[in-house]
Amino acid sequence: MLNPADSALAAALPDGVLRELTPAYLEEPRGRYLGQAGLVAAPRNTAEVAAIVRACAAARVGIVPRGGGTGLVAGQVMPDGPAPLILSLERMTALRGLWPEENVLVAEAGMTLQTVRDAAAGAGRLFPLSLASQGTAAIGGCLATNAGGVSALRHGTARALCLGIEAVLPDGSVIHDLKRLRKDNTGYDLRDLLIGAEGTLGIITAASLRLVVPPAATGVAMLQVPSPDAALTLLSLAEGRMAGGVTSFELISGQGLAFLAEKLPEIRQPLPGAEWSVLLEVGLPEGLPSDTALEGLLTDAMERGLVTDGVIAQSGQQAADFWNLREHLPEGNRRIGAIASHDISLPLSEIAGFIRDAGAALAGHDLRINCFGHLGDGNLHYNLFPAAGRQRGEYDASRKALSRLVHQMVVDRGGSFSAEHGVGRLKVAELAEWGDPARLAAMRAIKTALDPLGIMNPGAVLSQAQD
Amino acid sequence: MLNPADSALAAALPDGVLRELTPAYLEEPRGRYLGQAGLVAAPRNTAEVAAIVRACAAARVGIVPRGGGTGLVAGQVMPDGPAPLILSLERMTALRGLWPEENVLVAEAGMTLQTVRDAAAGAGRLFPLSLASQGTAAIGGCLATNAGGVSALRHGTARALCLGIEAVLPDGSVIHDLKRLRKDNTGYDLRDLLIGAEGTLGIITAASLRLVVPPAATGVAMLQVPSPDAALTLLSLAEGRMAGGVTSFELISGQGLAFLAEKLPEIRQPLPGAEWSVLLEVGLPEGLPSDTALEGLLTDAMERGLVTDGVIAQSGQQAADFWNLREHLPEGNRRIGAIASHDISLPLSEIAGFIRDAGAALAGHDLRINCFGHLGDGNLHYNLFPAAGRQRGEYDASRKALSRLVHQMVVDRGGSFSAEHGVGRLKVAELAEWGDPARLAAMRAIKTALDPLGIMNPGAVLSQAQD
Repeated sequence: MLNPADSALAAALPDGVLRELTPAYLEEPRGRYLGQAGLVAAPRNTAEVAAIVRACAAARVGIVPRGGGTGLVAGQVMPDGPAPLILSLERMTALRGLWPEENVLVAEAGMTLQTVRDAAAGAGRLFPLSLASQGTAAIGGCLATNAGGVSALRHGTARALCLGIEAVLPDGSVIHDLKRLRKDNTGYDLRDLLIGAEGTLGIITAASLRLVVPPAATGVAMLQVPSPDAALTLLSLAEGRMAGGVTSFELISGQGLAFLAEKLPEIRQPLPGAEWSVLLEVGLPEGLPSDTALEGLLTDAMERGLVTDGVIAQSGQQAADFWNLREHLPEGNRRIGAIASHDISLPLSEIAGFIRDAGAALAGHDLRINCFGHLGDGNLHYNLFPAAGRQRGEYDASRKALSRLVHQMVVDRGGSFSAEHGVGRLKVAELAEWGDPARLAAMRAIKTALDPLGIMNPGAVLSQAQD
Repeated sequence: MLNPADSALAAALPDGVLRELTPAYLEEPRGRYLGQAGLVAAPRNTAEVAAIVRACAAARVGIVPRGGGTGLVAGQVMPDGPAPLILSLERMTALRGLWPEENVLVAEAGMTLQTVRDAAAGAGRLFPLSLASQGTAAIGGCLATNAGGVSALRHGTARALCLGIEAVLPDGSVIHDLKRLRKDNTGYDLRDLLIGAEGTLGIITAASLRLVVPPAATGVAMLQVPSPDAALTLLSLAEGRMAGGVTSFELISGQGLAFLAEKLPEIRQPLPGAEWSVLLEVGLPEGLPSDTALEGLLTDAMERGLVTDGVIAQSGQQAADFWNLREHLPEGNRRIGAIASHDISLPLSEIAGFIRDAGAALAGHDLRINCFGHLGDGNLHYNLFPAAGRQRGEYDASRKALSRLVHQMVVDRGGSFSAEHGVGRLKVAELAEWGDPARLAAMRAIKTALDPLGIMNPGAVLSQAQD
């Protein structure tokens, strides 16, 4: 039953936008937070989004925008404070337009990433953003969080793949900027300001997205490397040899393979027991078979001591199998049960030292480390697990201190404590502590200027107390 | 002699930053505006920039930041209003660091683009931003204006090549964000907000820049195409065949070649008389000779009727000659003397129709059109010249109406009236007229929030009257 304040707000909303408040709206994937809500509204179009925002502003009710709900930093749920309205983009799923000859697609925010990719593929094009959660993640959420994924090395994060946006600002006004232009220098870059703002400055309702022509051929290989440092030298070698055509360069640790062997033994491992390996994908021009290109790289790299063993996928199926292994690393982690997960990035030349020093600093804590991820971007998922035979609950008392130790070592080396997941509600304290003071002050000034009532995703990114 | 107000401000500045006010500080390349200034200050470091900004804020004196002074929209000169202080970055030219293994370089804002490129090349790397004015243009100005150039198709504009910035905000605080990270999702994207803000929100004092490993081989060709539409189909074909390795795709018109033949006859023309041609450059992997790749493309394209003639550069010298022709098109234009120049962008599929319709709309005006530029980005320089035998002065009365006609046709087709040059002071009225109202309101709110005194580059981008 609605409380009186919610009833008044409900009456002010457009007809037919309210949805039943089911538990799914209050969950986030790792179960760290349970959200709350007064109302759930699912508008059908941008005008309804604007009307809901205006009604919430009038009622001083916070709004939590929600896409696919796959975010990992609790930006999509609000556990504390007055109950917000959840604004779900689930009914705004239209493909507004597709121009293959322009390499442009315009999607509404609620379209899943997979649907966007499928629409592009149907027109002979590729939308390069690729995430494990793409079947559920909405493109609006991908933009709001500037999602990364496995092709950012070649094609950039979500930000780099967006040409323009339509968005509803906290005052209910609508920015119409769904341009299909590669270049437009007419004023401040509000697109990139809203991208990555995690719904705290406005609601992205549609986006003009950049597609690419798929390369004539692709090649995939798994290569065993003697160390993360060797992997980075291999990356430079590969980038030169492939003319920047390295699409993905993913680091896999022996610990990750061991977790897979234990929990998902049906997944075949081409390089079992490798302490460090990389999954490499390249896009290649017409006239250069992927076997030739990858064998050339492999020979060159082995001569330089950068690779000790390797397997080049001989078919699309084998390439898919390699990717399947990579994409099941998080599932392996989930089945073991992490003590703490860290989505960090580092300057590339700091990575080897970080892995060495963090390993040494954690050595006395009787735990296992799975360090893997988007090495080409300097983005590692540095996750901690109980020692064999121990339970995660045994680490409850030390969890925060362990995360702090990891994050402090990252920050000290010029790295980021949130490379691709965002700040959400999970890392607000870290941003307040480690963020540059002048930058934080400017962020607050912008937040106050655009959202003086503080209704847009309250408590995400910036702490409410100081607002 | 300084007036009393300037004397007071001068006394408040750090020792030794004042420079003599020479005419060069007041000029812009096309001679449209003559600026004015009370003082010229050239700080040696970021702390001095901050001190100057604080002193100007206290004295309520506007600041016009100045890099190389090559901007084409008068963002670097201020002809009207109270005399500002010109803050020249000319003494902040240090290379703060270079990490070839990370593909990162950190440069102070006053370094010329050429010096940045040379530093990268010295370490076996490429900084891909490339402009005709790169010998003079400063990297800070390139970022402040989000400069484009001839490699944006492959590597993006200046924005895409910047990983982090150091900047002084209008209150004198300093953002320290010179990160060497590909991914960092910790808060609002102030980097991209300052990039392209043309000095109206703060002063970029240094930047962390993204380098690339040069491709194993490059190839250059000039190809005659039957129409701009055919050129765009050729681009899609080339992008697929080259796995996205098309670095540049520049349109050249017969009118541009005729201007070169008349004014710069020493420049050899490989395709004389071609009504439309493109200059194509590709980066290629190891194992695929550029001749093979480009001959394959040429054969394929000719079979499809997309190319009618073509020349593949057989040496580095010949490739340089082709580029020399392209880079002298603006000089040919200058010697003819334009009535009006337009830096426009269009959705790719609108380009052919625009060229046709704009040509028809202008046909009665007895003028010549040179339409050329970065076709792959949808970015054309659409410049109008007197008919043969007539003088530009004869068009003085119609100049504004002609530009308006061109810009209106661009805007009607979803294009931009400033693709890569920016708004500056030249296009403030156009932005006020054609800018999205909600976007303009948000820009003003941000400007007011960060620069409440309105001291940062007053009159650029946003009109002062409404501030």
